[in-house]
Amino acid sequence: MTYCAALKLDAGLVFASDTRTSAGVDNASQFCKMKIFERPGDRVLVLLSAGNLAITQTTINLLEKHGRTDDGHPTVWSVSSLFDVAGLVGDAMREVKARDGAYLAQNNLEFNVSFLLGGQIAGEEPRLFNLYSEGNFIEATSETPFFQIGETKYGRPILDRIIRPQTSLADAAKCLLVSFDSTMRSNISVGPPIDILRYERDSLSAGHKWRFHKDDPYLVQIHRLWGEGLKKAFADLPEPPTL
Amino acid sequence: MTYCAALKLDAGLVFASDTRTSAGVDNASQFCKMKIFERPGDRVLVLLSAGNLAITQTTINLLEKHGRTDDGHPTVWSVSSLFDVAGLVGDAMREVKARDGAYLAQNNLEFNVSFLLGGQIAGEEPRLFNLYSEGNFIEATSETPFFQIGETKYGRPILDRIIRPQTSLADAAKCLLVSFDSTMRSNISVGPPIDILRYERDSLSAGHKWRFHKDDPYLVQIHRLWGEGLKKAFADLPEPPTL
Repeated sequence: MTYCAALKLDAGLVFASDTRTSAGVDNASQFCKMKIFERPGDRVLVLLSAGNLAITQTTINLLEKHGRTDDGHPTVWSVSSLFDVAGLVGDAMREVKARDGAYLAQNNLEFNVSFLLGGQIAGEEPRLFNLYSEGNFIEATSETPFFQIGETKYGRPILDRIIRPQTSLADAAKCLLVSFDSTMRSNISVGPPIDILRYERDSLSAGHKWRFHKDDPYLVQIHRLWGEGLKKAFADLPEPPTL
Repeated sequence: MTYCAALKLDAGLVFASDTRTSAGVDNASQFCKMKIFERPGDRVLVLLSAGNLAITQTTINLLEKHGRTDDGHPTVWSVSSLFDVAGLVGDAMREVKARDGAYLAQNNLEFNVSFLLGGQIAGEEPRLFNLYSEGNFIEATSETPFFQIGETKYGRPILDRIIRPQTSLADAAKCLLVSFDSTMRSNISVGPPIDILRYERDSLSAGHKWRFHKDDPYLVQIHRLWGEGLKKAFADLPEPPTL
C-alpha cells in the first residue's frame, strides 16, 4: 500500500508521500514516491504515485525519456499548461498499459496505478490533478482543495476538518503529518520516512523537500502531542446523558 | 454501505450501528441493523449486520424461525455457549448462500455479508465474535477489544487511541459516537439515526437501546465540540521547524 496526499491552497501547494512498498507483508521495501521535474523560473512539476511500482516507475521513466528526445513532440518540458502535462502523464500510463497490461492480466493482476500531479508553469496558476489508472484525470478546485491516493481513509477526517484554501503552507504540512501519523497507526503497509514538499505560489522553484524519518524529533513530538491532544479533546466531551 | 462496531470491555459490551442502506445513491432507505435476542436472566445476544440487506434479513429470519421450532435441534435459545451461537449464525448464512448464492452470482453479485455477534449466556463471560461472509468467525480478546464491519476506516483511529479493556461503558459509548461522527462526515452512505446498546456484564438483560437521531441534542453537541476540540489540539501542535 501507499499513502500520498496533495493540497492546493491560496498560498501554494503541499505534497506528502510515504515510502513503503510491499509485495505481500513478507516483501516490504523503501522507495520514494515523489518525483520532481523542475526548471527554475519556468516550471515545477511534482508527481506522487500509488499502485504497482513497476507501472509507476516505467511511467516516470517514459516521461523522462520523452523529455530528453528533441523530435518536436510535446514533453513535460515543452508544454505550456499543467493540463497538458496531465495529458502526457495519461499518455505514458497508456503506453505502459499497452506494453504490460496483457501480461499482468495473464496473472490476474489489475493495471493498478494512480498519480497526483501538481505544480506550476510560468503564465499559469498553480494546479493540481488526480489521474486514474485509465489515464484520465480530474482537477482540484476551491471546493475540493485536496486529493489523496492509496490508503486514503484513515487520514482523511483530519484533512476534512482542517484544510481550507486559506490554510497556510506550514499548517498544511503539519496537518499532512498528522494525517500520515493516523494512517501509519492503523495500516502497517504505510510507513516512514515521509517526504514533504512545500511549493510557494509563483516561486517557480521546488525549494526544499523534507524527509521525516521514523525517529525524527518533530515527527515523534507530533505523534505524542497529537495523541495527548485527542485524548484531552475526548475527555472534555460531555458524557452521554442517559447511557 | 453501513458502519457497525462492537467493543468488549471489562465492564461489558457496547454496540453501535447506523441505519442507512443504499442500493445506489438514488435508493437510500433506513433499516435497523441491530437485532437483539433476549431472555432476561439467561441470555442476551446482539447481532450487528453489514452487507446485502436481503442476505442479513434472511439470515436473521432463519435464526428466529429455527428458534421457534421445537424439534430438538440446537437454536439460539437452547445452546449454552456464545461460541455455539456463532456457529448457528454461520450455519444460517450458509443456508442463505445455498438458496440464493447462485442467483446472485448470475448477476455478478457477491455473497456480501458480515455480522458482529456479542452478548452473554448465563455461566459464561461476555463474548464478542466477528463473522465473515463464509460463515466462519474470530473472537475478540483483550489485545483486540473491538471489531468493526462495513465502512470501518474513517472511524478507526479514534477507537485505536481511546478504547482499552478498562474503558468505561459510558466512555465507550461516547467514543463510538465520535467514531460514527467522523465516518458520517466523510462517507454519505453511513447515516443517522445511530443505535447504541450498552450491555452491563453479568446483567443478562439488554437494558436500554438508545437511538440518536440526526438532530439529537447530544449528537449535535458532540459533533460541534469534537470538531472544536480537534482544531484546538491541532492549533496547539508546534509548527514544523524548517518548513
